[in-house]
Amino acid sequence: MQEKKKIPKSVASRLSLYLREISRLEDEGGDKVSSVELGELTGLTDAQVRKDLSYFGQFGTSGSGYEILKLKNILRDLLGKDNIWHIVLIGAGNIGSALLRYPGFKNQGFIIKEAFDIDQKKIGKCYGEVTVKDVRQINDIEKDRSIKIAIITVPVDSAQDVAEEVTRYGIICILNFSPVILKVDEGVTVRNIDLSNELENFSFILTSAKG
Amino acid sequence: MQEKKKIPKSVASRLSLYLREISRLEDEGGDKVSSVELGELTGLTDAQVRKDLSYFGQFGTSGSGYEILKLKNILRDLLGKDNIWHIVLIGAGNIGSALLRYPGFKNQGFIIKEAFDIDQKKIGKCYGEVTVKDVRQINDIEKDRSIKIAIITVPVDSAQDVAEEVTRYGIICILNFSPVILKVDEGVTVRNIDLSNELENFSFILTSAKG
Repeated sequence: MQEKKKIPKSVASRLSLYLREISRLEDEGGDKVSSVELGELTGLTDAQVRKDLSYFGQFGTSGSGYEILKLKNILRDLLGKDNIWHIVLIGAGNIGSALLRYPGFKNQGFIIKEAFDIDQKKIGKCYGEVTVKDVRQINDIEKDRSIKIAIITVPVDSAQDVAEEVTRYGIICILNFSPVILKVDEGVTVRNIDLSNELENFSFILTSAKG
Repeated sequence: MQEKKKIPKSVASRLSLYLREISRLEDEGGDKVSSVELGELTGLTDAQVRKDLSYFGQFGTSGSGYEILKLKNILRDLLGKDNIWHIVLIGAGNIGSALLRYPGFKNQGFIIKEAFDIDQKKIGKCYGEVTVKDVRQINDIEKDRSIKIAIITVPVDSAQDVAEEVTRYGIICILNFSPVILKVDEGVTVRNIDLSNELENFSFILTSAKG
């Protein structure tokens, strides 16, 4: 095992971009890739690519590029790609139920194992192998120690309560679709997907363009 | 009209956060807010808040905070909140059809006006007032000059082609759900929502925690 420096979170978020492009190049029969090429594919500068990849030790030779297979295996290892990750989803509304039906997660080793809702009309609904349960049973997830990731797709007023509850039951990663800043304990990572915010960014651009 | 400095894109993406919290405070009967309070609500530092808001001119008084109503109106103006924005959606699969059913957009002045898919099983399906059309008719959007925003929810292999096509027909803002870096002309803004990337970030964290 080669020596590794501690990888900062900012680099971590780019690892899956690298892995995706590297895998594509491998599928196309490639065996080496330069930092310039990888930069173009990921939209990053080649300097950024070299800096990021330097965290995994020296396996690129100046001028000849990185070995695709070696780089792929390192990235897969770091990203835990050979593991299966279990997820709990809270809020089986429009967005939540779409995620329950979304095949993309499973293909990548992410399995939504439990789903909860407060609405009697949604409780009992089946999505593949997952049946939506009553949110009052959410402490069930504490018994299943394999679930460390929660997807929160509840209305904005409930999101903070749900976040506090799931972290009490062992969740340390939250993907939050509710447009609210969640306050969580240290050691819990929250990533936000805020559709309204993205669209408002566009309306700002369009408004500026008009004016 | 007070003098305004040109607002950088990085600030723009925080405007809707400010507006959201300001509106909430107003609903609760507040009339002034300090940069410290606004910082806590948005997860930003108070220095960042003060710096951002300084772009709209001087309307906060040191020590007494910002006037909520005045700030709200400025933010609403900048974000074009009194406008209606039309959207075209391409790819009516799991994620796409969920967005078509999502009431949150309309509430905020964003209306998905057209939807396209390549799949005969999806073409003709109705979501509220939108019927999914054959993607071969996508040049229809060129006639409707009100559509400037596209949401792309197609498989990864088609995303670049779709992006090129819609920008030819007048789209200048793209919300991209496909896990690929889109190459677009200058003047076109792309925002990416990459679910797999977010989840892989978690698997990295969980893998590191294990090791």
